[in-house]
Amino acid sequence: MGTRHPFLSLQPDEVQLTTDSIHAKHPGKELLIRVVGVKEPPKAECVAFIQGRGPAPSRRTYVSYQLKGEATVFEDIIELSSGKTIKTRDMGTACYPPATNIDMHRLEDIVMSDPLVQAEIDRLKLPEGCVVQPEPWPYGTESATPERRQYQVWMFLKPLDPKARGHPSGNHFAHPLDFSVVVDDLTMKVIRIDRLPMKPDEIYVDNEAAENRPWQNNPDAEYASELQPKLREDLKPINISQPDGVSFRVSENEVVEWQKWRFHLDFNWREGVVLRNVTYDGRPVFYRLSLAEMTVPYGDPRVPYHRKSAYDLGEGGAGCTANNLELGCDCLGAIRYFDRWMNDHEGKPMTLKNAICMHEVDNGIGWKHTNYRTGRAEVTRNRELVIQTIMTISNYEYILQWVFDTAANIHYEVRATGIMSLVPADQNADHDGINYGIMVSPGVMAPIHQHIFCLRLDPSIDSYDEGTIVYEDVKRQGWNAATNPYGVAFGVESTPIEKESFLDLDASLNRAVKMINPTRKNEASHKPSGYKVMIPPTQLQLAEPGSLHGMRAEFADHHFYFTKQDEDELYPAGDFPWQSVGGTGLRTWASRKGDIKAGEGIVWCTFGFTHVPRPEDWPVMPVEVFRVGLKPVNFFEKNPALDVPPSRQAVNKSVEVARSEREVQLRSTDCCH
Amino acid sequence: MGTRHPFLSLQPDEVQLTTDSIHAKHPGKELLIRVVGVKEPPKAECVAFIQGRGPAPSRRTYVSYQLKGEATVFEDIIELSSGKTIKTRDMGTACYPPATNIDMHRLEDIVMSDPLVQAEIDRLKLPEGCVVQPEPWPYGTESATPERRQYQVWMFLKPLDPKARGHPSGNHFAHPLDFSVVVDDLTMKVIRIDRLPMKPDEIYVDNEAAENRPWQNNPDAEYASELQPKLREDLKPINISQPDGVSFRVSENEVVEWQKWRFHLDFNWREGVVLRNVTYDGRPVFYRLSLAEMTVPYGDPRVPYHRKSAYDLGEGGAGCTANNLELGCDCLGAIRYFDRWMNDHEGKPMTLKNAICMHEVDNGIGWKHTNYRTGRAEVTRNRELVIQTIMTISNYEYILQWVFDTAANIHYEVRATGIMSLVPADQNADHDGINYGIMVSPGVMAPIHQHIFCLRLDPSIDSYDEGTIVYEDVKRQGWNAATNPYGVAFGVESTPIEKESFLDLDASLNRAVKMINPTRKNEASHKPSGYKVMIPPTQLQLAEPGSLHGMRAEFADHHFYFTKQDEDELYPAGDFPWQSVGGTGLRTWASRKGDIKAGEGIVWCTFGFTHVPRPEDWPVMPVEVFRVGLKPVNFFEKNPALDVPPSRQAVNKSVEVARSEREVQLRSTDCCH
Repeated sequence: MGTRHPFLSLQPDEVQLTTDSIHAKHPGKELLIRVVGVKEPPKAECVAFIQGRGPAPSRRTYVSYQLKGEATVFEDIIELSSGKTIKTRDMGTACYPPATNIDMHRLEDIVMSDPLVQAEIDRLKLPEGCVVQPEPWPYGTESATPERRQYQVWMFLKPLDPKARGHPSGNHFAHPLDFSVVVDDLTMKVIRIDRLPMKPDEIYVDNEAAENRPWQNNPDAEYASELQPKLREDLKPINISQPDGVSFRVSENEVVEWQKWRFHLDFNWREGVVLRNVTYDGRPVFYRLSLAEMTVPYGDPRVPYHRKSAYDLGEGGAGCTANNLELGCDCLGAIRYFDRWMNDHEGKPMTLKNAICMHEVDNGIGWKHTNYRTGRAEVTRNRELVIQTIMTISNYEYILQWVFDTAANIHYEVRATGIMSLVPADQNADHDGINYGIMVSPGVMAPIHQHIFCLRLDPSIDSYDEGTIVYEDVKRQGWNAATNPYGVAFGVESTPIEKESFLDLDASLNRAVKMINPTRKNEASHKPSGYKVMIPPTQLQLAEPGSLHGMRAEFADHHFYFTKQDEDELYPAGDFPWQSVGGTGLRTWASRKGDIKAGEGIVWCTFGFTHVPRPEDWPVMPVEVFRVGLKPVNFFEKNPALDVPPSRQAVNKSVEVARSEREVQLRSTDCCH
Repeated sequence: MGTRHPFLSLQPDEVQLTTDSIHAKHPGKELLIRVVGVKEPPKAECVAFIQGRGPAPSRRTYVSYQLKGEATVFEDIIELSSGKTIKTRDMGTACYPPATNIDMHRLEDIVMSDPLVQAEIDRLKLPEGCVVQPEPWPYGTESATPERRQYQVWMFLKPLDPKARGHPSGNHFAHPLDFSVVVDDLTMKVIRIDRLPMKPDEIYVDNEAAENRPWQNNPDAEYASELQPKLREDLKPINISQPDGVSFRVSENEVVEWQKWRFHLDFNWREGVVLRNVTYDGRPVFYRLSLAEMTVPYGDPRVPYHRKSAYDLGEGGAGCTANNLELGCDCLGAIRYFDRWMNDHEGKPMTLKNAICMHEVDNGIGWKHTNYRTGRAEVTRNRELVIQTIMTISNYEYILQWVFDTAANIHYEVRATGIMSLVPADQNADHDGINYGIMVSPGVMAPIHQHIFCLRLDPSIDSYDEGTIVYEDVKRQGWNAATNPYGVAFGVESTPIEKESFLDLDASLNRAVKMINPTRKNEASHKPSGYKVMIPPTQLQLAEPGSLHGMRAEFADHHFYFTKQDEDELYPAGDFPWQSVGGTGLRTWASRKGDIKAGEGIVWCTFGFTHVPRPEDWPVMPVEVFRVGLKPVNFFEKNPALDVPPSRQAVNKSVEVARSEREVQLRSTDCCH
């Protein structure tokens, strides 16, 4: 174990060893093993190892667990070679680990067999054959005094049409019921029914006053292809093939090599794919890259919707919820799949089959120039390597991609899709005036919400210990008879980041954050080697700063945060965002204003989209695409894609589609050339 | 002629008829025919025709021409059926039509045979074998008193290495000479030599003082694949095929039909591709879509660089400079090419071969949802139809694409590539401190610049005469005990655009412009049918507002402008931007503050990128990609891509790349599932 590579993802035997070790510590006790992950060794140790200056750091895991029936959460760090706990954190009872699909399935049974819930269902006098479908969510607390770990379970009906009802993709979201169920995670019992607001101005609902609300008969709305009245028949297939095989190589220790890029394809339950020690042509670029957290706050002010603010990584996990990706469905071409591992509640290893896929994509022209004198065009294609994970978090999907290209850029692409979170609405009430959502179907309202993401970038530009951070603005220079007599001048202004702090983007200044190595000057420009974050400014969190959403989303006030590198500070909304109340996370760390010395800086990049729902997003949403770029600046002396072979028909084998007769005739009688 | 469709692009016989008509008006005179284009009939006439309520509007062309040797420019409008001029504009001598490649070639000869230029070349004492290469540019005037139409010709040396020198893509931009040449367009004579600044603080250069500057020996820098020391050998081919053919259809009158979309593929010398009467499933969406202008102002304050602000459409033309696109080089897959037509200086028709290409692209997942209970995933692909033109404007390339997709979105994508404009720099001077550029190679400086584009959107959302424009902000609602007790609320605020005006984007408000039809309410949401412009805010023009760049770029002060529809107001920097001084164009029209009534509004959308040059952009630049989205909002009652067939391996025929032995072993001994 001690000799395993520090960037290797969690292996199945390591899950078992961790569980055995915890069991040995608590003999005879029943344990609830929440999550097991690799405890990453300090950067200095890893760097010494990869540079051949030190041994492989000792392999460790962390495990969050509870004794069954007890609220206290422990987080132990286990040294796998010895099986010993080297650190225990007693998190107390106010700390709530994430839920996995195991919890979700269990919750459904508990809710459906509960007499309070059955009484609610009876109240609705549902027609014969109706099937109720619970949809458990993490519970966003409404007070700063944390309660028991709880779930808020939204209630739906499966489709009314028996054909759709029996279909594995039958859509229950068209039938939101008018109550939700609060479940205690410890006792696994229903503790409360919340009847839901159904009218625009109904901020609070009195359960008793809502006693006689009738069930609303909504139309079904199916997204499954088999349930559509008619599918398009005129979309001809596109096939993508690589007759000579793929250009990438996967070797020991989950190393991927492609077009001068090399990195470890690490993965964990929480962040999903994590890229470790990304190098280009042997030169270090990033020590670690990951999506660190996201939050999805909703704008509907009505109780209990005011609690809705999901933290889909810390409460669920981009790894835990990774789809089993399918050949020919989720990607086209020659696809490499990767399994990864997590734990179940008993601490046994579970395989996440095909959790990651990797393939190459032709993304159009990479560069082109035509000498108009000779008519000679030089043109190359832009090839990309795409590493994809798709997470399903209840109703919603995120397609998460790390993308490398032949011009030495890295991109992070998010595609948001799936089914919006939907709430019941009185079919007889007038919802046209609300500004916090729209009706997408009779009885179904889609509330406005934000998706706010946070990337954690740990740079290693040409060195693991020399890098610094700056931001650059481009500014007009102002009239000046001596230096700018025609008023046309503008130029770059660079400002170093020397303290833990935050920064907002400003399109009017073309502001950009750069990770540089001031000791490695570019031979052509004499500027420090670097990579720039290419990202437009997006809307930050809209909840009031003093609201619970505001307090919890420690990464959502600014576009950039800068902190000192620390393996214990990986998650910007804190280690345990479930029912969190803030006070731990990125805002807190950035407020320390500590010095950031060479090699120490972490760049956190916040972006997102405010989703004003459309009927077009119903019942399933077309992808909303967002791309962040990491682009070399002064890292190379020339275009790094100069040596990409030219784009030639002999290789590409394209086909010309025949022209119409009229066009051919015009061509043949062409008088001009 | 009278019966030709009004959205048909200029046909070769129409060029000839136009020329014949002008010749008939000026018998015996030698004419310089600058540009011929279709004079678009009024929208009302075209709409009446396409709705079957009126006849085909009479087919007309416009032609800008001069009598040879005379400065006065005329613009006539010719009715083709009669060959009669129905309108003549005498533009006087202060109006400058665009230059085409014909001018460029001619300029080279004039410059190289001029004694002043030969004297300059002699002064440099170039080594044996050197070949001088002029590079003509439009001349940005420095005074508000327009002069003769002039060119500023930058001077370079072809590569020093004879192999590169003889190559059709040999790169002369590595060898900028220290002088430029000003040429009078009327007399076609050199009127002045401008010796160029070579040092950072050299705002003005005295020609005499620069008499003894020696020639600088710079290293060659080649971009041609054949001139690279070594090309990558590990990039395996990707082939894209459509075994059952393509999904689009091209019919009479340049109509394209694809996936419920239908439009005319119009084209002109200036804007390149223009999309006319874009409909979806028979419903009108846009009457006309085009890239209307762009400007490229430079930030280097030194004379004569302060004049550099190219208007690549009005001074050159996205149509005139359209590349002859090549099979298997500029696109992969099954490609349909289109020829289009322009005129030469004698007024004869010229074919622009393969000026447009069109093909389908698989752009990843279109929508997906997995029901985590059943494990069943529904997934479709996002198919795109790409319509591409590539313009080469001297040193630079723009790849311009209109993109349609299966979720009823339209995108406009720009990829900037080619060779940056470069200036000579004293190899012995210290350029490290300048903020208006960087050194990319010894003796070669790349100045900072902006690319600012303007799209003209003429909407017809579900009607040609009912549409209006609004913008929407998303705002936090503020604490309120009655309506927002938890401080989480946010909502949409909509503001109508009722006057000719402008608007800036604001990411903090998630501001977006929508074109709507208030009379066509969505059945689900009860909101007006519409399309939204999806675009992040980008940096606007940085030159001082009172500078000549500021005055000329009438579209570059704001992100959006709104004007009343008018066929005589198509070009936002005016009809003739060459040496323009402003006063005609978008700023002027938007300042009228005229009423915009239903069906009258034009939306002008300004975006761009500020290019801080990198050595990585040298000697040819990897594509910089920017995408604008036009997205349906309340146009459909459901996701319009619901009927896209599911993504299935049986159709897509992907291939799984084999795993390593170790992974297979782990899988086969898998204990967990």
